[in-house]
Amino acid sequence: MKPLLDELMAIVGPPHVLTDGDLSAWTQDWRKRTHGRALAVVRPASTAEVSAVVKACVGYLTLHPHSGISLVPQGGNTGLVVGSTPDDTGQQIVLSLQRMNAVRHIDAANLTITVEAGCILQAVQDAARAAGFLFPLSLAAEGSCTIGGNLAANAGGTQVLRFGNARELCLGLEVVTAQGDIWAGLSGLRKDNTGYDLRHLYIGSEGTLGIITAATLKLYPLPAAQLTAWAALPSMDAAVTLLGLAHQHLGAGLTGFEVMGQFALGLVNRHFGHLRVPFTDSPFCVLLENSDHESETHARAQLEGLLEAAMDNGCVTDAVVAESLAQAKTLWQIRESIPLAQAEEGLNIKHDISVPVSAIPAFVQATDTLLQQAIAGVRLVNFGHLGDGNLHYNVQAPLGVDAAVFLRDQEPLVNRLVFDSVMQFGGSISAEHGIGSLKVDHLAHYKSPVALQAMRAIKQALDPHNLLNPGRVLQVQPSA
Amino acid sequence: MKPLLDELMAIVGPPHVLTDGDLSAWTQDWRKRTHGRALAVVRPASTAEVSAVVKACVGYLTLHPHSGISLVPQGGNTGLVVGSTPDDTGQQIVLSLQRMNAVRHIDAANLTITVEAGCILQAVQDAARAAGFLFPLSLAAEGSCTIGGNLAANAGGTQVLRFGNARELCLGLEVVTAQGDIWAGLSGLRKDNTGYDLRHLYIGSEGTLGIITAATLKLYPLPAAQLTAWAALPSMDAAVTLLGLAHQHLGAGLTGFEVMGQFALGLVNRHFGHLRVPFTDSPFCVLLENSDHESETHARAQLEGLLEAAMDNGCVTDAVVAESLAQAKTLWQIRESIPLAQAEEGLNIKHDISVPVSAIPAFVQATDTLLQQAIAGVRLVNFGHLGDGNLHYNVQAPLGVDAAVFLRDQEPLVNRLVFDSVMQFGGSISAEHGIGSLKVDHLAHYKSPVALQAMRAIKQALDPHNLLNPGRVLQVQPSA
Repeated sequence: MKPLLDELMAIVGPPHVLTDGDLSAWTQDWRKRTHGRALAVVRPASTAEVSAVVKACVGYLTLHPHSGISLVPQGGNTGLVVGSTPDDTGQQIVLSLQRMNAVRHIDAANLTITVEAGCILQAVQDAARAAGFLFPLSLAAEGSCTIGGNLAANAGGTQVLRFGNARELCLGLEVVTAQGDIWAGLSGLRKDNTGYDLRHLYIGSEGTLGIITAATLKLYPLPAAQLTAWAALPSMDAAVTLLGLAHQHLGAGLTGFEVMGQFALGLVNRHFGHLRVPFTDSPFCVLLENSDHESETHARAQLEGLLEAAMDNGCVTDAVVAESLAQAKTLWQIRESIPLAQAEEGLNIKHDISVPVSAIPAFVQATDTLLQQAIAGVRLVNFGHLGDGNLHYNVQAPLGVDAAVFLRDQEPLVNRLVFDSVMQFGGSISAEHGIGSLKVDHLAHYKSPVALQAMRAIKQALDPHNLLNPGRVLQVQPSA
Repeated sequence: MKPLLDELMAIVGPPHVLTDGDLSAWTQDWRKRTHGRALAVVRPASTAEVSAVVKACVGYLTLHPHSGISLVPQGGNTGLVVGSTPDDTGQQIVLSLQRMNAVRHIDAANLTITVEAGCILQAVQDAARAAGFLFPLSLAAEGSCTIGGNLAANAGGTQVLRFGNARELCLGLEVVTAQGDIWAGLSGLRKDNTGYDLRHLYIGSEGTLGIITAATLKLYPLPAAQLTAWAALPSMDAAVTLLGLAHQHLGAGLTGFEVMGQFALGLVNRHFGHLRVPFTDSPFCVLLENSDHESETHARAQLEGLLEAAMDNGCVTDAVVAESLAQAKTLWQIRESIPLAQAEEGLNIKHDISVPVSAIPAFVQATDTLLQQAIAGVRLVNFGHLGDGNLHYNVQAPLGVDAAVFLRDQEPLVNRLVFDSVMQFGGSISAEHGIGSLKVDHLAHYKSPVALQAMRAIKQALDPHNLLNPGRVLQVQPSA
């Protein structure tokens, strides 16, 4: 390995090839579920350096095909499915994009921003806002995650309802291929029908097909006002009805629609009582956000009109509209505190699933019943982005049962019951978190064999040495 | 070939394998530029039949690898780049999806419609409207083109500004692969991060990677009001300024923004005088559409507010807002009549290009100058979807020059000047029409070699026999 490491040092400079000391910031995953070993952490400063690093590895692999050398691209290392940390072979090189964090260009008339992969998501949002625009991708880890990782994982978050996932916000990519070539695809074009859409192939491929080094992203005008409401609902059916009304009344103004079950909010109430959760006796609550290009007065009239119609309809039993930015922030904080409250309550089994919006009530009822029949007293934490059909459907140990023991004994059963149910309702076992290494076996089991075969053929065609993030997403043999 | 044709007849029924008589509806392209010869036109009625047809061809090719048999998937045969008609070898089988035209399902709560590939676009729009929803894809050929073709070509049209291209409107696909397998990907999910996005790979691949047999598409609430305005502008720079103002004032209400040059409108005036083109002495006109979820009063106030701001700014010198649906239709008809008026004026050299919106004024100025220097008296017809950076930049013979002679002598030069200029401004040589067979050589010349190599590897991996629409988009050798 020494010659390869020397070559990498020559490319990025010796201070940026880390092999000693505590490398856990790069080798341990965000949720601390696994701790791998890296041959090295390499931190290139430019696309040319990324290209040279890949070419060095390809060269080494050509001479030493059984060396087991491979590259694990990494951004902010905030992923939830162990997709960007090395395995325990000690033969994987972490390729950290963090030093490539420039905002290259803002094109106001084209409504685009071009940034390097290592830009922190919040920095992209801030740069857009400073230029008078909105970059709408927003998620819990935005202070640490990078835009390259967001694109590699096709991140979702709370604004998908209106603006789509990360892929819908991307107009162009710069990618270093598995051969070390640079694809300069930072077009910033809204229409470009010149062949296969490589951009969408690299986005969501979790670093297994190419290394995203920069992206051109869509910007939107900043809204004139943003109002948040909190509504109490009698059932999940009512939440689906409210969503339909909200689409009609708010149109594209509807930028947030988060549903939360009573048990989830009860946990927030227990562990973060100072947040004063409204309507804790309601079976479900929904957080709504209305973004308006006109004025706060208009936004408020629209939102109040919706809530009146919903009370008349009966799908909402009570509601408040935040009177200040501080109140709105607190409502969002309650929503964002659910995972933290869950953690306070103890370990739990998390699922990030989606089904068609219309199927959500039946899915929840059927799956709740299945789990309660299988495990007496099991507690269900249910919340998520209803507008996208995306639930974080988490399973907590029965009261009095040790959480670690519960996980060890019941996780396979719980996963099987939940995923089988998801498939029955035409859903996805990973809505926004991706596959990484954590769900590779689940994907092999649940994904259509036709799709898996096509994916494998693509992986082998674009990365014949299986150099890039091998074993993530799907298992393949090198074809080179 | 006889055994293969017998097998195909056994699959779809003898009346649906056409080999005799006038097949020009399937073998001649929309613009009547080429007339191919088909071994047969095969018209399956179901996905299972499509699958069986592909498997029969694969079987035949395995036994007769040099037979030259291949399949040309075809929808409404309205494409503009000769991508869905057979070549002149007489060995290609046209696979017409027209009999597969069912609307399978509307899911109101999920805001989706599932349709078969052969559905006419207008029928999809109508089915959506009948259920109280908008399916926003809209283009000139909507009465004849099919949704399968729209997706295969990633069609654009007039509503892209707000709703995106065909690909952005598609949540799931059913595809028959080059092996004849059926990928049942009609998920209707808004979030699904389970591996590579095959949907986006098939969309826009022009039938070269798989055969789209059905799709699940996004629906939107019908707008409460839609208003159209016509504005006079002093320059293309002013049009870009107006676009920025329109984004700010109308937000997501801005659903149309079409720019038209004075010469283009003059042709409409000359050949369709009854349409009464407004502001014919203005260098440029813009057609604006504002869709509002609230009311016509609100829509009008918003649009008038925008036009006042634009007049204050100076980017608009005069404007009218349509007072009735009939007036609005006439304004759109003027816009849609430009290609017809051009045809009346004589043959011309068409380009469907895009550049970043910010680069449009400089691109137009530079390219106009280049062409006028190269060909004295050349006339430039310039119109298009400015909001998407997409211009139909067409070149008409100088007055008094025979159009056919002009095309024969000048087309290569004109194409080179226009495409070189497009590349210099970071644009695309095919914004919404695709590559087909007409632009294969242009693509090979202008597209990044890195991208071409990736595309070729993908084609060979997914279609090793080169069975599906060979020679379209890019040239490859069979890898099987």
